Amino acid sequence: MKYLGCAYYPEYWGLDRVPVDAALMKAASVNVVRIGEFAWARMEPEDGRFDLDWLHRTVEILDAHGINVLMCTPTATPPAWLTCSHLESRFMRADGRRLEHGTRRHYCYTSEIYRHFTRRIVEKLASEFSRHSNVVGWQIDNEPDFIETGFCYCENCQQAFQAWLKKRYGTLPELNRCWGTGFWCTDYSAWDQVRLAPPGLAPARVFDTRRFANAQMSDFLLMQADILKRLHPKSVVSTNLNGEVFTDLDFGNLFEKLDVAFKDLYFDICTMDVNSLIMDQFRSFKPGQSYWVTETGAGMCGNGRPAHKGQFNAWMWSNYAHGADAHVVFRWRTCLSGQEQNLEGMLEHSGHPGHRYQIIKEAFGDMRKLTAQLGTLPLPEAAVALIHDYDTMWGYKSANIGSQIGYERTFTEIHKQFYRRNVRVDVVSPQADLSRYSLVILPSLVMIKPEFAQRLKEFVAGGGVVLAQGQLGMRDDHNSYLSYDGPDHLQELFGLRIHGGMYLYSCVGPEETPSKPTDFKTRIGGQLDGQVVCGSASVWLGDLVGQGGKALLSVQEDLFEGQPAVVERATGKGLAVYAAAIRMDDDLTGALYEYVLNKAGVAFRRDVPLHVEIINRGPVVFAINHSGQPVELALNIRGTVLRGSFKDGKASLLPYDVVIVDTRV
Amino acid sequence: MKYLGCAYYPEYWGLDRVPVDAALMKAASVNVVRIGEFAWARMEPEDGRFDLDWLHRTVEILDAHGINVLMCTPTATPPAWLTCSHLESRFMRADGRRLEHGTRRHYCYTSEIYRHFTRRIVEKLASEFSRHSNVVGWQIDNEPDFIETGFCYCENCQQAFQAWLKKRYGTLPELNRCWGTGFWCTDYSAWDQVRLAPPGLAPARVFDTRRFANAQMSDFLLMQADILKRLHPKSVVSTNLNGEVFTDLDFGNLFEKLDVAFKDLYFDICTMDVNSLIMDQFRSFKPGQSYWVTETGAGMCGNGRPAHKGQFNAWMWSNYAHGADAHVVFRWRTCLSGQEQNLEGMLEHSGHPGHRYQIIKEAFGDMRKLTAQLGTLPLPEAAVALIHDYDTMWGYKSANIGSQIGYERTFTEIHKQFYRRNVRVDVVSPQADLSRYSLVILPSLVMIKPEFAQRLKEFVAGGGVVLAQGQLGMRDDHNSYLSYDGPDHLQELFGLRIHGGMYLYSCVGPEETPSKPTDFKTRIGGQLDGQVVCGSASVWLGDLVGQGGKALLSVQEDLFEGQPAVVERATGKGLAVYAAAIRMDDDLTGALYEYVLNKAGVAFRRDVPLHVEIINRGPVVFAINHSGQPVELALNIRGTVLRGSFKDGKASLLPYDVVIVDTRV
Amino acid sequence: MKYLGCAYYPEYWGLDRVPVDAALMKAASVNVVRIGEFAWARMEPEDGRFDLDWLHRTVEILDAHGINVLMCTPTATPPAWLTCSHLESRFMRADGRRLEHGTRRHYCYTSEIYRHFTRRIVEKLASEFSRHSNVVGWQIDNEPDFIETGFCYCENCQQAFQAWLKKRYGTLPELNRCWGTGFWCTDYSAWDQVRLAPPGLAPARVFDTRRFANAQMSDFLLMQADILKRLHPKSVVSTNLNGEVFTDLDFGNLFEKLDVAFKDLYFDICTMDVNSLIMDQFRSFKPGQSYWVTETGAGMCGNGRPAHKGQFNAWMWSNYAHGADAHVVFRWRTCLSGQEQNLEGMLEHSGHPGHRYQIIKEAFGDMRKLTAQLGTLPLPEAAVALIHDYDTMWGYKSANIGSQIGYERTFTEIHKQFYRRNVRVDVVSPQADLSRYSLVILPSLVMIKPEFAQRLKEFVAGGGVVLAQGQLGMRDDHNSYLSYDGPDHLQELFGLRIHGGMYLYSCVGPEETPSKPTDFKTRIGGQLDGQVVCGSASVWLGDLVGQGGKALLSVQEDLFEGQPAVVERATGKGLAVYAAAIRMDDDLTGALYEYVLNKAGVAFRRDVPLHVEIINRGPVVFAINHSGQPVELALNIRGTVLRGSFKDGKASLLPYDVVIVDTRV
Repeated sequence: MKYLGCAYYPEYWGLDRVPVDAALMKAASVNVVRIGEFAWARMEPEDGRFDLDWLHRTVEILDAHGINVLMCTPTATPPAWLTCSHLESRFMRADGRRLEHGTRRHYCYTSEIYRHFTRRIVEKLASEFSRHSNVVGWQIDNEPDFIETGFCYCENCQQAFQAWLKKRYGTLPELNRCWGTGFWCTDYSAWDQVRLAPPGLAPARVFDTRRFANAQMSDFLLMQADILKRLHPKSVVSTNLNGEVFTDLDFGNLFEKLDVAFKDLYFDICTMDVNSLIMDQFRSFKPGQSYWVTETGAGMCGNGRPAHKGQFNAWMWSNYAHGADAHVVFRWRTCLSGQEQNLEGMLEHSGHPGHRYQIIKEAFGDMRKLTAQLGTLPLPEAAVALIHDYDTMWGYKSANIGSQIGYERTFTEIHKQFYRRNVRVDVVSPQADLSRYSLVILPSLVMIKPEFAQRLKEFVAGGGVVLAQGQLGMRDDHNSYLSYDGPDHLQELFGLRIHGGMYLYSCVGPEETPSKPTDFKTRIGGQLDGQVVCGSASVWLGDLVGQGGKALLSVQEDLFEGQPAVVERATGKGLAVYAAAIRMDDDLTGALYEYVLNKAGVAFRRDVPLHVEIINRGPVVFAINHSGQPVELALNIRGTVLRGSFKDGKASLLPYDVVIVDTRV
Repeated sequence: MKYLGCAYYPEYWGLDRVPVDAALMKAASVNVVRIGEFAWARMEPEDGRFDLDWLHRTVEILDAHGINVLMCTPTATPPAWLTCSHLESRFMRADGRRLEHGTRRHYCYTSEIYRHFTRRIVEKLASEFSRHSNVVGWQIDNEPDFIETGFCYCENCQQAFQAWLKKRYGTLPELNRCWGTGFWCTDYSAWDQVRLAPPGLAPARVFDTRRFANAQMSDFLLMQADILKRLHPKSVVSTNLNGEVFTDLDFGNLFEKLDVAFKDLYFDICTMDVNSLIMDQFRSFKPGQSYWVTETGAGMCGNGRPAHKGQFNAWMWSNYAHGADAHVVFRWRTCLSGQEQNLEGMLEHSGHPGHRYQIIKEAFGDMRKLTAQLGTLPLPEAAVALIHDYDTMWGYKSANIGSQIGYERTFTEIHKQFYRRNVRVDVVSPQADLSRYSLVILPSLVMIKPEFAQRLKEFVAGGGVVLAQGQLGMRDDHNSYLSYDGPDHLQELFGLRIHGGMYLYSCVGPEETPSKPTDFKTRIGGQLDGQVVCGSASVWLGDLVGQGGKALLSVQEDLFEGQPAVVERATGKGLAVYAAAIRMDDDLTGALYEYVLNKAGVAFRRDVPLHVEIINRGPVVFAINHSGQPVELALNIRGTVLRGSFKDGKASLLPYDVVIVDTRV
Repeated sequence: MKYLGCAYYPEYWGLDRVPVDAALMKAASVNVVRIGEFAWARMEPEDGRFDLDWLHRTVEILDAHGINVLMCTPTATPPAWLTCSHLESRFMRADGRRLEHGTRRHYCYTSEIYRHFTRRIVEKLASEFSRHSNVVGWQIDNEPDFIETGFCYCENCQQAFQAWLKKRYGTLPELNRCWGTGFWCTDYSAWDQVRLAPPGLAPARVFDTRRFANAQMSDFLLMQADILKRLHPKSVVSTNLNGEVFTDLDFGNLFEKLDVAFKDLYFDICTMDVNSLIMDQFRSFKPGQSYWVTETGAGMCGNGRPAHKGQFNAWMWSNYAHGADAHVVFRWRTCLSGQEQNLEGMLEHSGHPGHRYQIIKEAFGDMRKLTAQLGTLPLPEAAVALIHDYDTMWGYKSANIGSQIGYERTFTEIHKQFYRRNVRVDVVSPQADLSRYSLVILPSLVMIKPEFAQRLKEFVAGGGVVLAQGQLGMRDDHNSYLSYDGPDHLQELFGLRIHGGMYLYSCVGPEETPSKPTDFKTRIGGQLDGQVVCGSASVWLGDLVGQGGKALLSVQEDLFEGQPAVVERATGKGLAVYAAAIRMDDDLTGALYEYVLNKAGVAFRRDVPLHVEIINRGPVVFAINHSGQPVELALNIRGTVLRGSFKDGKASLLPYDVVIVDTRV
């Protein structure tokens, strides 16, 4: 691991304390600190008056201790003199109220005035701090997304939205056509009638509201990236994603234009299978490149959950094994005040290096020693690609009813099928190069663009296996349903036509009301590889007819009785499989996923206990036990054990234990 | 059934598609379509510029296929040019925010400007479309009520409220007296101090806020009715109720002034006993007249619940058996866009006539054929009247504490007593003619007007049986409690005085806090027709003394121990029974209801399984199984079976099956 | 009991009714009525025009019946002419909306205009009514607190807040330092940037927002007290607390400056152990003085819960036994109208003296007779002091995470340890004289001021026992954590250093997400007085090292394994005990509390059933059964039984029964 570090707030603790802290950091193998993301008021105490001496001095002291700096632009928290004097720079909620000073992200990302002040501070910082050799990178803003605030609805944003729409659609009749305004009387006859949609309005309008907000925020961040790359070209420039996989900001697009994918990953917030999904996604953002974890808990996070003995270590090694190149804890010392006064740093409030300092010191020391010994390792390789499409996800989120599909849950549960079988997965966009994979999964991708369809066809022709589930190619680029059968552009590949589908949210009995919905299940059955399989589907079921495809499973009751439920078609050297059900019971899902894994020739294991990971980085094997139970594990390899207990090809893992074996020796 | 049809949106699908659709409709026995309720922007694309050619052409093409039209006025969804240019036409929420364009019902029903535009479009439509012979009726607005929006609180409404109050009360001292403003210092000393009440304020003020909103909305709708009747006198003019039985708009009053009662009835939204209650109510709105169902689900509604095989048919026949003359599905084809893009029409998004088209085609064909064969049948007859009083209901809804009574639940559970005993019930207002009934039920009617009391006395004198439960005649016409004992005007009839009562929301134990309320039950017992009965009461219990009445049951524990709980008094040829308990356990309630049914000489059955209906329309008997279980049913009749399996007086019903027997032959 | 009475609203019922009511009151032993708190509009119908004749006449009629008056100032409900003409007198919510007329407490306590009108009406009332000899006291406003409204955020309050801060901190740099604005960029550079904090912002800012609101409201109330004491010096002047123990208004400070502690205590709203805590607190507000209950339920309160037979009586005697000198029911007669039209008075709506009148008449008669017989009794004596600190409580409430500690729950559960062992407890502030006690309890007091620490040391030196639990002396006076180890000022006394602690909100397993938090428990064990004890701790656990103290119990697993959990240190003649756990299982908590009770030499009983109280007022013993079960109870005394069944030293109590024994005879 290249960087082991922590977030540090010299503006809070004062310059006098820096030498003491730097020495303690050094003793704990810290070689990078992240500085500055909330320090605007101390960098520029008044409009145009800068005070950066304390920051230069801090960077120098750290340098003297061999510690690098990841510098942050401070735009997530503008100073009071800015937001109180320039009210239009303040974020406005859908109800017309501006956010108070004293929170985070209370700025409007569209505001020209805010952009002016942003450009000035970023240019100032970049030009001054590029001269320090230990400033190795820049983080733009902090955790940009819309989770904390939602979208801004101020008049500047409204006008920018209208301009953005004008550029996109040209004329109002074209906008009316694309948005399908003919129902519920929503035709627009003047541009200023078209306003950002609060949630719950027409899906096309909500969808464009999301796309617009994403475009504005991305533009704001990339404006900063341009300045930083121009003034400090050798540095690593990026921004840090906080939200989980399913963000309202398109990080795929951002990271494509930035140097490294940064992730704030608090392992104690999600279940371990989701943590694994997140790490798989971050390794995939920039193919062939390691990602950085820019924040992870030093101790308990906002939720007040202490980690168990050893858990910090297991998480850190899992992060390395998945492909991380930095592991930066939040934060050096617990702050005494502020909303986060209880989020634990490495040091106690008092500055005492207590339990957490000792745990991290030991873990970092261990990591430093072992990775030096291992040398540079290749990233883990995945034979499976799971497609994550922002448009599809935002499409679902923009419609009241489609959201029952639960894109996030569907996606997560698909990934878990691989996680529990110890199969490595890349999480990639529809634009990704598919040639590296044997199996590609489409998780209810309701919008399919022709270019993507074309590449899928080539992938199958070349021997790949595709599995698509659920709503496949049924909406257009404006979140409207197609006026013809689906799957759009893919009827031939999958050998079928989709007429529509049926939400199985709840059946209708005479005693039932929608206030207490329960899943309605429909039986599905047939044969897979000669084995009879049978189970139930819920949530949604496609209404389809075969057209060249072969039905493997079919519906066994009620309205769709006798219709195909899983269809496959072989083309060229490959195979396309479509499952009409979006959620099936475990046995059925497992059988289907093992069927396509076998067809694609991808190895998997059934005997690894849940939440135990075995990950290869080239010749080195990492076995990590995230469970609270001891585990005996056959690794079927020979090599030198670098950490933990390994004998006769078997690893013995205590709870939260890590075994590392180097097969080169 | 006179009309079988669907809602149709030619403004959405375009004129080119109309001939294709009309042919498909005709093939499915559709003979009416409902058009226009959301088409204002396409009828009048700019202020004063009308474009109605496409609509005329549509009506003509439908005519050529033998299809009638129920035309709608489009005022539920005003166009953007109207609401954006005339902000005062926009609905204002209690928090001062105007509704966004892009929803429904975002207009102020008081606004003079909105009424001006409404009059113009309605006059235009009525004068132009009255000339088409296949335009058989008009629907005013769409689903007017306050469910989607609440009441408007704009300044126009505030001033109109003050004027309405001035007219009602004359002077402020009189308003202060009627509202009982002496507590909590709410005296008014100037009219502009009196504003529409948000929920939670003084019950009298909230009550008048409700009555005012009802008056304004009704006035707005009847203004349209006047225009339509004037310009198209031969047509059927009405408006369609969406909410369930317990609306904030007084549909009793509206339907009295309109031609037919229209109901949007989605059978999958309520339990079947509530559907049955709704149909009973609609048959009763205009005595002796059939009602129309103007919307019912073609497939799944907003909640994503598919019907079972056969269920559409069972619902349709139940509707006919209850007295409907129209069954109009929503909607012809599933729209591609808009908030309702997932509400299923008869055709798929793609226009494909799939499962739902086939199901409805078969059902409609069946219905067409059989009703032709049956000829015109009389409506089903009810010997029981259940009184539904808007003032009482709104009174409860206007007070924080009285709402624990649960008027809706009480009412629904009383109706279910009859539903499960296969006894037909009319749901009528206190103004209804009672002479047609043998038994009248008063469900916790807390407000009793003297005229109604007088008619109840005459009804009993003439041999009728009255059963009253719960809070009877305890509040005045302003939602204040009486300053004397209840039941107002009815002490003599029932032979008792009510001092007050006791809410049995939860008892007070030393471990109990109100945060976890549980029903407190009190034992009640005694004899009914010589049978000992015993059970418990909850929710509320009246505190009464007999005064000429005879106690049948009495309270057996705690504070009211020994007091009468059920009292009866015979007068003339009839009987008045009062039950002090508002909710009793099943056995006790059943015994009481069978007691009064017997006294009134009304036949009932105990042996019909729940959710199986047997309904007579004159000589024809309909047996409908809404349950998922097969049922064997003794009908004790002879006749010709027109549908289903019937032998030796017994019907055999599969799940969702319908048996029809004509006893004339 | 000196005063038995009821609230009375002659302004509502009219003067004509007063003689009738007064006679009925007299017959029910009522000797005080509370009048006027909502009558402003009838006292001053227009700005400056007073109408007080009806009130004078009422007071005179009551006097003629031997009934005293507790007069109220009417400022809780200003008249419409005031709030509608002077909008700035109206309370503003955090979202910028002013409260509607028609509620209560819709005034701004900062508004100079409101204070002007307040002074005028209070001076008028005081100068006129001080001449009636039966006006014995004044209640200021009604139930002042922030429960109904939250804090006012109007511009007047904002400016007053800035002035208050300026006075407190002098300069902005000092404010920035004390608030710790260095994190999240919240430095202020101009006073008008500093605004009242909505909940969720920085803890120091929210904390001062609370302190400011408390100061303003207190100032508003004491302004009234000054007028009343000046114009009517012989009267009892106070205000009535409605909220439970944990109010946002500092009643400790208020009652110190007022004559008697008034409490509105509805026994049916809380569990009986909390009722007992409240009475203990009220007896403690003014040491050596009785408190008054100014409101208690005559019947059911807002929640619709009827009391059981006898329960009114048990509550009344419990109140007397705890030290009350007044028991005033709310209210004489149930109002017909208004938000509280269902809150039951002694008379029914109709004026009928029904069940509740009879119950109260009997209870009051009994009380009158017996207390005359008993003479003046000393207050019950407590050997245990439980410290309640407003700053600590508000500190917790002002921080997002610290609130998990659950100060209220912790406090309540500690009191219950004594309640269930029949140990009397005083609830006192950190300023209280400790010399009267043997045992002092500090319930997670996170802020410890040096003066208090000094008095604790003296208390222990003199032989007292102190038990502190949880977060002890870890934050400063601005709600920020200390930059050094805790417990502040108390390290030596307890013989330990606290580095920090660990929230045990939930552990982190691989399957766990914070959305479903469950208590994480850690094992604790060791010996207390030679007995092995073992159990678990949850919620929070301190991270400490002994430093002179002796570890009694220690942590037995996970991160803190082996660390001390309970530490004691003897100093002088006394003992200081610290428990690092904030919540332990019942056995462990019980063992700890019995340990310190024994050390302090305080007697306790384990054999009294829960919710049975035995309370001594000097020589008279009260045994009260609040449970629904009959109870046999050994009292181990001899004496004359004045009420109930008592033989051979044993009391026999039916449900809700009271036994009184005078040991003097």
